[in-house]
Amino acid sequence: MTAVQKARLEMRRNEWTGPTKHQLPGAVKCNLVILPKADAYDFLVYCVHNPKPCPVIEVTEPGDPEPKRSAPGADLRTDLPRYAVYRNGERQEDRLEIRELWTDDSVAFLIGSGMSFDDALERAGVPKTGTWVLNTTLETVPAGKFRGPMVVTMRLMTPSQAIIATQLTSRFVYTHGAPVHIGDPAAIGADLADPIVGSPLEAIPKGLTPVFWGCGVTPQSAALASAPELMITHAPAHSFVTDLVDDQFCIP
Amino acid sequence: MTAVQKARLEMRRNEWTGPTKHQLPGAVKCNLVILPKADAYDFLVYCVHNPKPCPVIEVTEPGDPEPKRSAPGADLRTDLPRYAVYRNGERQEDRLEIRELWTDDSVAFLIGSGMSFDDALERAGVPKTGTWVLNTTLETVPAGKFRGPMVVTMRLMTPSQAIIATQLTSRFVYTHGAPVHIGDPAAIGADLADPIVGSPLEAIPKGLTPVFWGCGVTPQSAALASAPELMITHAPAHSFVTDLVDDQFCIP
Repeated sequence: MTAVQKARLEMRRNEWTGPTKHQLPGAVKCNLVILPKADAYDFLVYCVHNPKPCPVIEVTEPGDPEPKRSAPGADLRTDLPRYAVYRNGERQEDRLEIRELWTDDSVAFLIGSGMSFDDALERAGVPKTGTWVLNTTLETVPAGKFRGPMVVTMRLMTPSQAIIATQLTSRFVYTHGAPVHIGDPAAIGADLADPIVGSPLEAIPKGLTPVFWGCGVTPQSAALASAPELMITHAPAHSFVTDLVDDQFCIP
Repeated sequence: MTAVQKARLEMRRNEWTGPTKHQLPGAVKCNLVILPKADAYDFLVYCVHNPKPCPVIEVTEPGDPEPKRSAPGADLRTDLPRYAVYRNGERQEDRLEIRELWTDDSVAFLIGSGMSFDDALERAGVPKTGTWVLNTTLETVPAGKFRGPMVVTMRLMTPSQAIIATQLTSRFVYTHGAPVHIGDPAAIGADLADPIVGSPLEAIPKGLTPVFWGCGVTPQSAALASAPELMITHAPAHSFVTDLVDDQFCIP
């Protein structure tokens, strides 16, 4: 059994209920979105038309919680440490498993997470520092009822690190890929005073360059805008850990 | 009006009925598959799970023949030079337009074509020579009724060209990307004596290395295996020409 498989088993038994962020380095991590089958087609088209914020790694068969392509044997109803439950577009309780909420009609989408390239960035000399999640005025390509602005993650780094980070993440096409913007946050309507995640910033510290990547919150946010009766996602920072290996699941 | 837009207009008027292969260098070319809405979801999942042979560039809204993302203003019922019509899994007549066959229920898939990187390969010193299309024993990941072996294109080149071609096509993730195999055709069950396209070969000429890429015939072939009542594709070598630019629509 690999370290990742062992970790998923601990999550299944609720022995691991904390974040997966910065854990199990080298494994591809995925954001989870569970929707009813009736919404699955439009949501998948939405993701395919917006590959930077919404890179789809796997879609499960309706009613089957096993992600056969990225983690054979895993169970998406239990093998994440923590889930967020949304009803009619409102976030409600968190759960440690969602067996009771899963039906024959449930479809799970695994969407590559930017956490997957954090380790590679660190190895390349771009240290893990704070990450901000910000709304923008960049519109995504709509599909059916799914639409909305692109949500981005922002990292601050030196200009030479920004070049390395651009080069390196360009290879990670299944986990957001190259940046969508570099430099002035206002140019994409990102408001530093009002981040979704992270502390408000008055200004970019002198000498640092902000670099922005499409964020896995985008598909969640597009799905929520349609106020589905029930939507289940991973809880923030509690992404699913696949058997896929970062350094193989990219453009080498 | 760009050269590509002008060319599409000529195709619409049936003034251009020949191949698009090796024409309009620098434009992203797409294979076309038109299916009824009922089959669209499973087919899209199939493509997403097999990104090398089936890179989806756009999916149209049911009944709407305009590819808004890759060629705004174009009409997929008329703007290809030649179409192939399949009924119950059998290829039947070719047509210069398919207005009569298009319904409110039709969904068009545009799938990146390897033709798109031929020009880039040539600029990098890998000349356009013959291309073979071959069946293999590599199984694709099934979705619903869509399944089957991967079809590949084979190009022959020197070993040093094979390295350049691997580096360069790795960037073209939306038009098949990196090779799926290099070297011995038998290792992937490719039978040189029985190509789908190209002349039978007795052996690989001495000094040349065969390099294999996922081929856009794969999704057509998977769709055909399910024997849909009606399926429409581009005629071979008569791919759709988008407004997208090769050198931008890749990992730079």
